[in-house]
Amino acid sequence: MANLNGTTSDLRTEFLKVYSVLKSELLNDPAFEWTDGSRQWVERMLDYNVPGGKLNRGLSVVDSYKLLKEGKDLTEEEVFLASALGWCIEWLQAYFLVLDDIMDGSHTRRGQPCWFRVPKVGMIAVNDGIILRNHIPRILKKHFRTKPYYVDLLDLFNEVEFQTASGQMIDLITTIEGEKDLSKYSLPLHRRIVQYKTAYYSFYIPVACALLMAGEDLEKHTGVKDVLIDMGIYFQVQDDYLDCFGEPEKIGKIGTDIEDFKCSWLVVKALEHCNEEQKKILFEHYGKEDPADVAKIKALYNDINLQGVFNDYESKSYERLTKSIEAHPSKAVQAVLKSFLGKIYKRQK
Amino acid sequence: MANLNGTTSDLRTEFLKVYSVLKSELLNDPAFEWTDGSRQWVERMLDYNVPGGKLNRGLSVVDSYKLLKEGKDLTEEEVFLASALGWCIEWLQAYFLVLDDIMDGSHTRRGQPCWFRVPKVGMIAVNDGIILRNHIPRILKKHFRTKPYYVDLLDLFNEVEFQTASGQMIDLITTIEGEKDLSKYSLPLHRRIVQYKTAYYSFYIPVACALLMAGEDLEKHTGVKDVLIDMGIYFQVQDDYLDCFGEPEKIGKIGTDIEDFKCSWLVVKALEHCNEEQKKILFEHYGKEDPADVAKIKALYNDINLQGVFNDYESKSYERLTKSIEAHPSKAVQAVLKSFLGKIYKRQK
Repeated sequence: MANLNGTTSDLRTEFLKVYSVLKSELLNDPAFEWTDGSRQWVERMLDYNVPGGKLNRGLSVVDSYKLLKEGKDLTEEEVFLASALGWCIEWLQAYFLVLDDIMDGSHTRRGQPCWFRVPKVGMIAVNDGIILRNHIPRILKKHFRTKPYYVDLLDLFNEVEFQTASGQMIDLITTIEGEKDLSKYSLPLHRRIVQYKTAYYSFYIPVACALLMAGEDLEKHTGVKDVLIDMGIYFQVQDDYLDCFGEPEKIGKIGTDIEDFKCSWLVVKALEHCNEEQKKILFEHYGKEDPADVAKIKALYNDINLQGVFNDYESKSYERLTKSIEAHPSKAVQAVLKSFLGKIYKRQK
Repeated sequence: MANLNGTTSDLRTEFLKVYSVLKSELLNDPAFEWTDGSRQWVERMLDYNVPGGKLNRGLSVVDSYKLLKEGKDLTEEEVFLASALGWCIEWLQAYFLVLDDIMDGSHTRRGQPCWFRVPKVGMIAVNDGIILRNHIPRILKKHFRTKPYYVDLLDLFNEVEFQTASGQMIDLITTIEGEKDLSKYSLPLHRRIVQYKTAYYSFYIPVACALLMAGEDLEKHTGVKDVLIDMGIYFQVQDDYLDCFGEPEKIGKIGTDIEDFKCSWLVVKALEHCNEEQKKILFEHYGKEDPADVAKIKALYNDINLQGVFNDYESKSYERLTKSIEAHPSKAVQAVLKSFLGKIYKRQK
């Protein structure tokens, strides 16, 4: 997601202070008998994997909670708790990324080698992923055990993790099937993958955390959920677009969706817009490592003007989302949703 | 653990029926939009990894709950719920095993290839491990959401998973350090590894589940926890012993602790009982793949009579545990603990 606004760096600094507190609590968790070696290992693993991203998911819990409180000043405790929930989402993200990189055989992440590629780490990274995941309920128990919404928080994180893992599963098994027959890639399949794999944990859970902290019942906010899921799908379509058409310096990685035979929005749209001859090119060259194959696919994407198709999708999505948001009865909730949309519309990274 | 008693196979059949119910619920979980492909994938993955073990951890929840009820007949619902909790522990075990086998590069498990070695599975097994883990809160939510002890169940599973992952971590990083200097392997380190890696999830959690279902407060049963942890440590020492001295046909695998440079109870005891010359042999040949090296270590273990050292440990453990159990004020709890001890004492597999 794009940067927020002028006060971004202050917010970030405050937010990072909470990271230090949480880390130090975790490194002294009385449920385990620490050794120096294990404490050092976990500290290095956390610093390497948790705080190095854009932190937008985490920061947006604090943002959203502020907007729900409609300008009232937050107490120090409220800021701390909203930040702690934000960090739980960042921990969740770190857990997924550490394990995804192993599954995808990736090389770099956030401008450094993937954790499992670090010397002496290797497959221990699988267990480190599990440790990251386990830190979430530790944080929740320490800071929220006595809150009336504690059990709802546990249920929320459990459900969203389940949905994300299920989305990751269809993504992984779809690639097996797609390699046999590319024409299995379709818009409904793509929607399903990105909704489960990305939208719940990137868009829904930050707002859901803020709503729970504000004393709201999530069952009464299915409309908000629908808008956020819709936004998450749009976000992932941008991601697919930028993987091919974005500037590597801006997006921080070199896209490999074409090489990896990914069920990307671009290949789905290409299948839709190709004539028979172009379809042959697609079937022959998609999912190959050779840069010459990749170049043929990119040339094809240009021939059928996928950039234009995307621009059209982007403006239509923006219109639709704006309408849905403005239909919401609460101005505070509208502000939360508009803030999210503003952060991602026409993003370049 | 060894088999139970005459009624084992009936209990097992009943217990396996509950597996079928839980599986079918999970395969129709409304939190996810299933495709045929994903449903088939998960079903095959579950059948391959969950029900194929000895099921002792799971069955012991039902056993323990019965003993806590002191002979009163259980309702059908009670049997179902205790079985469901038992299956949650089996799911937890399956999750750990699938991921451990990847980390250890193992080849076989329960007499079949490890899941990640199955064609077309490979690194998708990492995500399958996550899916297995995520099934636990799905089962708990479906069947226990309205119970007064629901939040305690969630906390219990979270804490035990955290402890197991932490134990696995010290096991993994200890091997890195041990490869530099074998003399770092000591009895306190071994105790710490096995307590966290094995005892909580194999011994404590089944009884803790039964206690929660019986309406007990776990905070009031720290004595029971201590005995179970002690028993779990004894169980893992047996495991270390059988890895070297057990019969592969009985234990279902060929032990590789020596090759893998494991901080096994045997190597720790060997370090204690060796003279300087024998210590040299240990340092030179431990942790090598070559069968000639392994044979030298096994010969050394025989020279210093580790089997005798183990037999002595086993009878002393039995005595100590029996005393602790008999000191417990509740006869029902005594029965639960004695049943556990009886199942593992002098086990050959």
